[in-house]
Amino acid sequence: MQRTFKLTVAYDGTDYVGWQIQPGRPTIQGLIERSVARRVGQRVGVVGSGRTDSGVHAIAQAASCVVPHWAATAESFATAVNVDLPDSILVTEAVDAPEGFHAIRDSISKRYRYQIQNGGNRNPLEHRYWYRLRKPVDTDAMTEASRRIVGRHDFASFQAAGAQRKTTERNVSACDVIPLPDGPWGEPRVAIEVEADGFLYNMVRNIVGTLIEVGRGKRPAAWVDQVLAAKNRDHAGPTAPPHGLFLLSVRYAPFDAG
Amino acid sequence: MQRTFKLTVAYDGTDYVGWQIQPGRPTIQGLIERSVARRVGQRVGVVGSGRTDSGVHAIAQAASCVVPHWAATAESFATAVNVDLPDSILVTEAVDAPEGFHAIRDSISKRYRYQIQNGGNRNPLEHRYWYRLRKPVDTDAMTEASRRIVGRHDFASFQAAGAQRKTTERNVSACDVIPLPDGPWGEPRVAIEVEADGFLYNMVRNIVGTLIEVGRGKRPAAWVDQVLAAKNRDHAGPTAPPHGLFLLSVRYAPFDAG
Repeated sequence: MQRTFKLTVAYDGTDYVGWQIQPGRPTIQGLIERSVARRVGQRVGVVGSGRTDSGVHAIAQAASCVVPHWAATAESFATAVNVDLPDSILVTEAVDAPEGFHAIRDSISKRYRYQIQNGGNRNPLEHRYWYRLRKPVDTDAMTEASRRIVGRHDFASFQAAGAQRKTTERNVSACDVIPLPDGPWGEPRVAIEVEADGFLYNMVRNIVGTLIEVGRGKRPAAWVDQVLAAKNRDHAGPTAPPHGLFLLSVRYAPFDAG
Repeated sequence: MQRTFKLTVAYDGTDYVGWQIQPGRPTIQGLIERSVARRVGQRVGVVGSGRTDSGVHAIAQAASCVVPHWAATAESFATAVNVDLPDSILVTEAVDAPEGFHAIRDSISKRYRYQIQNGGNRNPLEHRYWYRLRKPVDTDAMTEASRRIVGRHDFASFQAAGAQRKTTERNVSACDVIPLPDGPWGEPRVAIEVEADGFLYNMVRNIVGTLIEVGRGKRPAAWVDQVLAAKNRDHAGPTAPPHGLFLLSVRYAPFDAG
């Protein structure tokens, strides 16, 4: 009997060109689909809640797939798929979802976390996961600027140049600058978490790059309002690099998990 | 004026064939010597407290070098050397050492840490640093076995086959099985820390492999005494893989740091 699964997937994006399949290149989706095909004996599409870019990580990406037949528990499906995945990708959970469940269409909101090392020497064991700023930035100014991101706005200025979306309005429910404990060598650390009902291409990394401009004292916090009003990518700050970014969670309307 | 520096070095060993220079292959020593040569304008030997193997990490490896001329502070020497090092290697400290200081000859003791994930799913973001055992082992039995390692013994059974050292007697001052908090996905974790006045080739990894045999219930804790008495590598457990191993610290007699 055909079954629909909702998968939760964690990965280190360092060695991949992103979530989405690209022929001949290593992608998270490609490796998961290959593993699923081996387990169920035929090609099955695995739909992610959204693409993550090359080098972006995930704590809990969500995905859906419809398999023609699986007699055992959903949990055992996760275990089986994990067998053929590399160490840097793990299906942390699989649950039965209602027929028709679709990881993109049904998502209500997503939360991302961007990790910044605010000055100090690099940490040779964790450099893959932190964007290191050589000169410390003013996180109070960034906090003030971050509040201006929250709300329903047209985020056209924060969309990668050239991207085409029908609408660029999104509702950002949270944009928090979070002080963190120092790293093992005393590295000052801070995270920026952004939650919204949807994200435009590169939106989090462009928000982070813009907040950093404020943190560097190049712009006042109120500049963010002007950037939003301009609806033009040229007005925002630079795109922060991918390796500090984690997809933290994807929310769906609750369903009976079988 | 010629100056002798003591360096402290942290690194992720994943991408290196070990500390020691090998022509045409990536080594930590090779990269540090290249960087030092660029800073001081001539080739300078950098002596590590000992070799770490391919894939082994360090929190605080110690090294010494004698530079023909450095006018600025020792601290600025570390900063300068770091400029040309990759993200996975960092000189965390440089201090002036007495003339004749030598990182191998003068070391009093070293401490290693071996990180074990005791069952559970792999952690895709930290798999580089944990040896994951599929089936959980009995850490109480390992603790009991670890006490038999402590003391002055002939560790010939724990030396890599084929290694030649004048004497295989060493004094192990600590061998502790340390329970750790669970990882972010609930992974059970434990570390083994071993401190000694010196280590034979692969000694920590062979001790760990032997303790794991006990933890798996294949051997009783008292078996460790027989392994020690045998003075023959064939009697000990298998060599644990390199990626769980960290050189934690190297002790020297205190000197006035300039």
